[in-house]
Amino acid sequence: MSDHTDAPVAPVGAFEPPYYVAVFTTVRTQDQSGYSETDARMEELVKNVPGFLGMDHAQTPGGLGITVGYFRDADALTKWRCDAEHRAAQKRGRAQWYECYTLHVAKVERSHGFARAEGPQSRATD
Amino acid sequence: MSDHTDAPVAPVGAFEPPYYVAVFTTVRTQDQSGYSETDARMEELVKNVPGFLGMDHAQTPGGLGITVGYFRDADALTKWRCDAEHRAAQKRGRAQWYECYTLHVAKVERSHGFARAEGPQSRATD
Repeated sequence: MSDHTDAPVAPVGAFEPPYYVAVFTTVRTQDQSGYSETDARMEELVKNVPGFLGMDHAQTPGGLGITVGYFRDADALTKWRCDAEHRAAQKRGRAQWYECYTLHVAKVERSHGFARAEGPQSRATD
Repeated sequence: MSDHTDAPVAPVGAFEPPYYVAVFTTVRTQDQSGYSETDARMEELVKNVPGFLGMDHAQTPGGLGITVGYFRDADALTKWRCDAEHRAAQKRGRAQWYECYTLHVAKVERSHGFARAEGPQSRATD
């Protein structure tokens, strides 16, 4: 969810399926006051959810944002979905920060990663 | 996969589950020669795959790129995965365009969308 660009740039790797992804695609409004503070707080909170595996974020300037959260199982996602601070942030997001968004929650069946230095690393047939 | 920013900006909406997402997270190399032509060709090709539902893309400048493809079922994804031109593009991607990437293929269990003008639009319990 962060727009920080000072973090080391690498996508979250492939985990052993099954695991869950929450794909959150957004277009934001002009009024982003308070967003970055809440975003930082959500990043902090989600890391404490048992079963949280990681998160990727990309933002086209003036365009689409995509955040992908990775979770070990459905229970982990439910815990995050029901977190009181997270729910309050979602409500404010609909009221202020998001022009529109879509959320897709899905169970990963296969995955693999590639890194130039090390060559292909397959975790599942592809 | 496109970096075009002149398209109307809105995320792909929620479909009736089950459907599939292919989440492709990338960091690109310095050498992007030929990328945009191949990217445009892949966008053209994937639209012809029966069961292709749509695609979202976001790119943080100098950072992470995320492309999410939506497909009606596993067969549609298999067709796309086995496309000869697509396979050639993947091979060139590993050789030239990508520093690293991860692919997560997952079956969507629930989804919903929100648009400011119309209010919340739920396709599944949340």
